Amino acid sequence: MTQASHTVGRHLLADLSGISAPLLRDSGALESLLRAAARAAGATVLGSHFHHFGAGGGVTGVVLLAESHLSLHTWPETGFAAADIFMCGRCDPMVAIEVLLAALEPTERRVEVVLRGAAAVERA
Amino acid sequence: MTQASHTVGRHLLADLSGISAPLLRDSGALESLLRAAARAAGATVLGSHFHHFGAGGGVTGVVLLAESHLSLHTWPETGFAAADIFMCGRCDPMVAIEVLLAALEPTERRVEVVLRGAAAVERA
Repeated sequence: MTQASHTVGRHLLADLSGISAPLLRDSGALESLLRAAARAAGATVLGSHFHHFGAGGGVTGVVLLAESHLSLHTWPETGFAAADIFMCGRCDPMVAIEVLLAALEPTERRVEVVLRGAAAVERA
Repeated sequence: MTQASHTVGRHLLADLSGISAPLLRDSGALESLLRAAARAAGATVLGSHFHHFGAGGGVTGVVLLAESHLSLHTWPETGFAAADIFMCGRCDPMVAIEVLLAALEPTERRVEVVLRGAAAVERA
């Protein structure tokens, strides 16, 4: 069990469709949303960086956590957003994704959960 | 095929073990490495933010790209690092992971590739 600490956390990949285009262009609102999702999950925000591509373009952004990160990349022209939430320690990424889903209101979603570091643990 | 643009890119999740502990504590070297990996893959770096937890602690960091992001989180006490590389457009995340592997020299690796937005395309 010497490598138990290699189970570092859960990594959620969320493909979200059918989201309001104006929301997917609102860099400030999306940055606030991801920071709020991080806090709701019990994480410590170290910083965030969001970029809006301008005009009708989307947003690309990341929130750096003491417990890993969240990211969101949006395509307003198709109502699509790709989120990932990686959290270790006592944080719960399922809480964070629920905050995102409640605000973005996608009509369709695909959420994949990957256990990071699991291979090392399986060998222990 | 109206939703073809929902295939937004490839997302690599890499669990890397057996890495030199001093390297996993070197925030500056790791930030330079991830920025170099992004450029090698043909990506445009918008910014980066790396944090070292101090003393014997690890590093947590993200590089924001016009084409999505790279991240790296390290546990020097176990020689472990978790990387993710999400790139859309013409960028090739396989080039970026090769740059990381060459520099980090893990003794073991598990690399998972997730096609983001694929569900929307399957329905098109």
